[in-house]
Amino acid sequence: MSGAVVVQVAGSLATVTLSNPGKLNAMSRGMWRQLRAVFEAIQQRCDVHGVRLQGDNGHFCAGGDISEYAGFRFEPASLREFHEGDVWGGLQAMLDCDVPIVAQIDGHCLGAGLEMASCCDLRIAAEGARFGAPIARLGFPMAPREAALVMRAVGELTAREMLLSAAVLGAAEMKQRGFLNQVCAADALDALVAQRLDAIRRLAPQAARLNKQSFRALALVLSAQPAIDLVANAYDYAASAEHREGIHAFIEKRPPGFLR
Amino acid sequence: MSGAVVVQVAGSLATVTLSNPGKLNAMSRGMWRQLRAVFEAIQQRCDVHGVRLQGDNGHFCAGGDISEYAGFRFEPASLREFHEGDVWGGLQAMLDCDVPIVAQIDGHCLGAGLEMASCCDLRIAAEGARFGAPIARLGFPMAPREAALVMRAVGELTAREMLLSAAVLGAAEMKQRGFLNQVCAADALDALVAQRLDAIRRLAPQAARLNKQSFRALALVLSAQPAIDLVANAYDYAASAEHREGIHAFIEKRPPGFLR
Amino acid sequence: MSGAVVVQVAGSLATVTLSNPGKLNAMSRGMWRQLRAVFEAIQQRCDVHGVRLQGDNGHFCAGGDISEYAGFRFEPASLREFHEGDVWGGLQAMLDCDVPIVAQIDGHCLGAGLEMASCCDLRIAAEGARFGAPIARLGFPMAPREAALVMRAVGELTAREMLLSAAVLGAAEMKQRGFLNQVCAADALDALVAQRLDAIRRLAPQAARLNKQSFRALALVLSAQPAIDLVANAYDYAASAEHREGIHAFIEKRPPGFLR
Repeated sequence: MSGAVVVQVAGSLATVTLSNPGKLNAMSRGMWRQLRAVFEAIQQRCDVHGVRLQGDNGHFCAGGDISEYAGFRFEPASLREFHEGDVWGGLQAMLDCDVPIVAQIDGHCLGAGLEMASCCDLRIAAEGARFGAPIARLGFPMAPREAALVMRAVGELTAREMLLSAAVLGAAEMKQRGFLNQVCAADALDALVAQRLDAIRRLAPQAARLNKQSFRALALVLSAQPAIDLVANAYDYAASAEHREGIHAFIEKRPPGFLR
Repeated sequence: MSGAVVVQVAGSLATVTLSNPGKLNAMSRGMWRQLRAVFEAIQQRCDVHGVRLQGDNGHFCAGGDISEYAGFRFEPASLREFHEGDVWGGLQAMLDCDVPIVAQIDGHCLGAGLEMASCCDLRIAAEGARFGAPIARLGFPMAPREAALVMRAVGELTAREMLLSAAVLGAAEMKQRGFLNQVCAADALDALVAQRLDAIRRLAPQAARLNKQSFRALALVLSAQPAIDLVANAYDYAASAEHREGIHAFIEKRPPGFLR
Repeated sequence: MSGAVVVQVAGSLATVTLSNPGKLNAMSRGMWRQLRAVFEAIQQRCDVHGVRLQGDNGHFCAGGDISEYAGFRFEPASLREFHEGDVWGGLQAMLDCDVPIVAQIDGHCLGAGLEMASCCDLRIAAEGARFGAPIARLGFPMAPREAALVMRAVGELTAREMLLSAAVLGAAEMKQRGFLNQVCAADALDALVAQRLDAIRRLAPQAARLNKQSFRALALVLSAQPAIDLVANAYDYAASAEHREGIHAFIEKRPPGFLR
C-alpha cells in the first residue's frame, strides 16, 4: 500500500497529517483505515483538546488513489464495500470524534479531501486552495452518504455545481459560499491555525465535547440514513461502460469518450 | 389561453423557453401544464444531457398570470387545485428530471419565476436581474409546498424577507446569499450559460443522473410533505376580504386597502 | 430581580425593548418570563402587524445575567428548569408569534442575544455590532434546543466556530455568512428598521400570518425535538468542577483554570 495517515500529539493538541508522496496525498484504502484508527484513538484520549488535520507538501488531499480503482470498482459488492466500509469508516470516525478538529487546507482539496474537510469543525484555507469533486470526469457519481455529507457542508447549490459540472472553486469563492471560516496567505496558514487551536485549547474541554455531541445529535436528525435506503441501486453502475471508460481513460492519460 | 413553454433540442442539449409576450412571461395555467409535459418528455430522452431554462425577451418570469386569478382563487377547492395540481405538477416534473438544468436568468425572476429557478441545478444571472415574491402585495401567502421549495433554495432569512416584507433583491445580493452560481453582464449571459452546458455535456451522463437521484433522495428527507399536512388550512383564506382586495386592486391598477 | 422587557404599541406596530441597565441588557430569569408574556400577548392582538425587538442604551443583549447563575446552575434539575422552562419559554413564544418581528441590533449580540435574534424574521444591524456565544469561557455548553435554534440561523460552520472556539464576529462578517439582512451605520439603524416595518405594515396582515405558519411548519420538520431526546444527559454537567470553575472565575473576575 502507498501513503499514510500520521498522528503526533504535543501537549493537549494532536496533528493528523495525510501523506501520499507524489500523489498529492490521494487517499488509498489503507489510508482510509488508518484515518479511522487515528480518530478512534483521539476520541479515547481525555488529554487531547484540539486536532489539526493537514496534508503533506503543500496540498490537503487531491482525492482517492485512482491507481487502486481498477481492482475493485467494477463490481457492485466490492464497490459498496469500499465506499460504505473503508471510506465511510474513516469519515464516521471523524464525525464521531468529540474533540474540535480544525482543517488546515492548502493546494488541492478535491473529492476525498473535500469530504474529510466537511467532517471538520473549523476550516481555514490558504488563498490558493482549490475545492471540488470532479469525479464525473472519471465516469462515476459520489456515493449517496458522502454526497449528503458534502451537501450539508458546501450547500446544495455548490454540491450540484461541483458534481454535475465538475466545477473547481477557489478559496475566496468557498469563503463567500460559507464553507470556510477564514482565508489567508499560504505562508500565514500554519500560524493562523495554531492560533485558532490555542484559543480552543484554553476553553473548557467538557463544554466542547458536549457541544459536539449536541451538533451530532442535530445532524442525525438531518442525516442521510433514509436517503441511503432510497438509493437502493447506488452501486449498480459498477460494471457500466461509462464507469470503465472514465477510470481507464484517466489511468491511460487520455480524454474519456462519454459523448454518444 | 395565453403564453407557451417551448422546447428545442439541438445535439445533446435542450432549451426550454418561457414565453408570454407583453406579460414578462407570467405563467398561465396552460403554461404550468406545458412545463410539466416538457420536463416529463426530457426525462424520457436518453440523448439529452443538459437543459437550459430561459425566458423570452429579456425577462425570466415575472410571476403568475394574474389576469386568470379572479376565475379560481376565491374558493379553497379551486385554489388548492391550482397550486397542488397545475403549479406543483410543473415544479415536480422539474424536480423529478434527472438531466442537469441550468437557469439563465435576466430581468424579472419573481414568484413563479423564483420557484422555477429554485428547481434548477445551476443558476446564472445577468447583473440586472431581480428576485423576489412580493405576493403579500396581492393579499395572499405562498402555498406551503412552494414556500418549502423556495426556503431551501434562497435560505430561510431571505425567504422570510421576501414573503413578509415583499423585498425584491438584485443579482449581486442573491449571489452573496448563495442562490446564484455566477453573475455576469447581460450581453455575456447567453455565452456563459452555453459554456457551462458544454462542460456538463462532456461529463459522464449516467453519473449526472445518479448524482441527481442522490440529491433528490436527500431532499426527500428534508421534504415539505409533513409540513404540508401541518398546514391543513392552507387554502382556507381563498374567500377572505384581504385576498379579494389584493387581487382586485392589482387588476384595477389601484393600491390595495389592507390597513385597518 | 433586575432588568425588564418592555412593550409599547403605536398604531399597528409594537416595540419590545430589552433593558438591564449596567449589564448590557443581560437576560435575568425574570426577563425571560416577561419576554414570553410579551410575545404571547402580541400574538393575541389582531391590530399589531409588525414588531421591533431592540436593546436599551446601544446594546442588543450581552447574554444571560451571570450574577444569578451560582444560584441554580450547579444542579441538573434546576439547570434544566432554567433552560427548558424560562429560556425556552421565552424563545418559543417568539417562534410561535405570527406577527413579523424585526431585530434591531447594535453593540453586543451574544449568547441569549444571539438566540433571541435567531427567533426574528428580519435582522438589521449596526456595523459595530458583535455576535457570538463565548460560553465555553464560562465552562458550559449551549443547551441542545438553543444550539439547534442558533445552528439553523447562523449555519453549522459558524455555530461550531462560535461554540467551540468562542469566536466573536462582526456585523459585516455575519452579513456575509447569511445571518443579517442588512448592515448600516449606527446612527441610521433606527430609521432603517422603521422603514422596513413600514413596508411590512402596508402588506396584507393575514398573508403574513399564514406565511409565518408555513415557515413554522417547515421548521418543525427540521426541528430539534428528536435531537433533544438524543441528548438525554444534556444537563448532567451541572455539578462538574469545570462548570463551577468557569462561573466562579467570571464572578471573581479572574481567568478560569481549565487547562489540565
